[in-house]
Amino acid sequence: MTRALKLSGAQRAVLGGALIASSLDRQEQDALLSCAVAVRYEPQDVLFREREKARYFYCVLSGYVRLFRDAEGRVADISICEPGDSFGECLVLAGEGYNYNAQAMEHAILARFDIAQVKALLDARPRIGGAIARSLSQHLLSTMDCLARDRMQTSPQRVAHYLLTHCTNEGTRASLRLPFQKSLLARKLGLAPEALSRAFSTLRTSGVSVSGRAIAIEDINVLRQV
Amino acid sequence: MTRALKLSGAQRAVLGGALIASSLDRQEQDALLSCAVAVRYEPQDVLFREREKARYFYCVLSGYVRLFRDAEGRVADISICEPGDSFGECLVLAGEGYNYNAQAMEHAILARFDIAQVKALLDARPRIGGAIARSLSQHLLSTMDCLARDRMQTSPQRVAHYLLTHCTNEGTRASLRLPFQKSLLARKLGLAPEALSRAFSTLRTSGVSVSGRAIAIEDINVLRQV
Repeated sequence: MTRALKLSGAQRAVLGGALIASSLDRQEQDALLSCAVAVRYEPQDVLFREREKARYFYCVLSGYVRLFRDAEGRVADISICEPGDSFGECLVLAGEGYNYNAQAMEHAILARFDIAQVKALLDARPRIGGAIARSLSQHLLSTMDCLARDRMQTSPQRVAHYLLTHCTNEGTRASLRLPFQKSLLARKLGLAPEALSRAFSTLRTSGVSVSGRAIAIEDINVLRQV
Repeated sequence: MTRALKLSGAQRAVLGGALIASSLDRQEQDALLSCAVAVRYEPQDVLFREREKARYFYCVLSGYVRLFRDAEGRVADISICEPGDSFGECLVLAGEGYNYNAQAMEHAILARFDIAQVKALLDARPRIGGAIARSLSQHLLSTMDCLARDRMQTSPQRVAHYLLTHCTNEGTRASLRLPFQKSLLARKLGLAPEALSRAFSTLRTSGVSVSGRAIAIEDINVLRQV
């Protein structure tokens, strides 16, 4: 079972920088955060199921949360939420039930916002509605990005794009350490684990070497050509 | 060249029922529609390109509009907008430039909303901001649907899902007439035209017969098993 705790000062600071609250002034942030508590989940814990009546939306403080659909034995990941990412906030503006399943992928700590309490704030604090709408705009754009890349890019191209947008350059060389297991990267990119392995094998010829979570890129200009 | 015309009574009625305006009262609708004109496009006309400075958002009155990304010779359709669908309205709340390309797919008539004028309305008419946010929520959900189906379903399953959600039943038999060319259905489902043809061939064994745009389904329960 999850236990709800008061948000700590450090957790409030993380939330203040998250997209859902960063455009708000101090008083508005305080009002929004007064609707939230901190909850902790074990790996694989299910936060909610599709179609369940929605009481809360969430913002990730640490760990990762997977949003996914399942139907007739088939499963599809929609998003992997990282610290600072919020999800479910569209239910403040419209809708009754969750539109996907959410599951913690590691030990995760989340800020849990009471939807009814946030709704009650909107009249007096309309800029909170604006902040939620901006957050929705960002989710829409990143979901469109994901859809377009799925439709446009091969598996090695999707992996190359992830590496290029997450690596640290040292001249033309670059490197990164995956913040999570390869299985989570596969979910994020919409690939089966074996498709991700094949993509990494293909990228070896483009100078990408992998050792556990550490990835080295010989020449970013070569990787851009994939 | 497009010519901007005053909205007709019939066009205002279509807009009043579109998601972007349907939750507004009469005065709010009038205020929102005062920011719009009707514009007409020929097939293949480009409305705007990705990264162009955004001056307008749109709502389809008739015809179809394709939203797509292109990069390095690869193209991916993100959405096919039908009459009543709006697009680009997130730019009222955040952002400067368009996030995709838009192209008319038939003779199309659109309501074109001036973003600066709509922005100027928001303080006095905050419920217009709410209506835009609800529209964004709906776009987010349908883009998530599309992403999940792409990742979860085979090509015949995607086509079967489209048929089942758009057909008219007569007992277990059902039929529909595609509102657009098969090439547009392929784009909508994220399939190459030849993949759509193969999917229809596969579905023949499940009782789906195609003659031009007319599609007959022998038994919807069989089609549900695909």
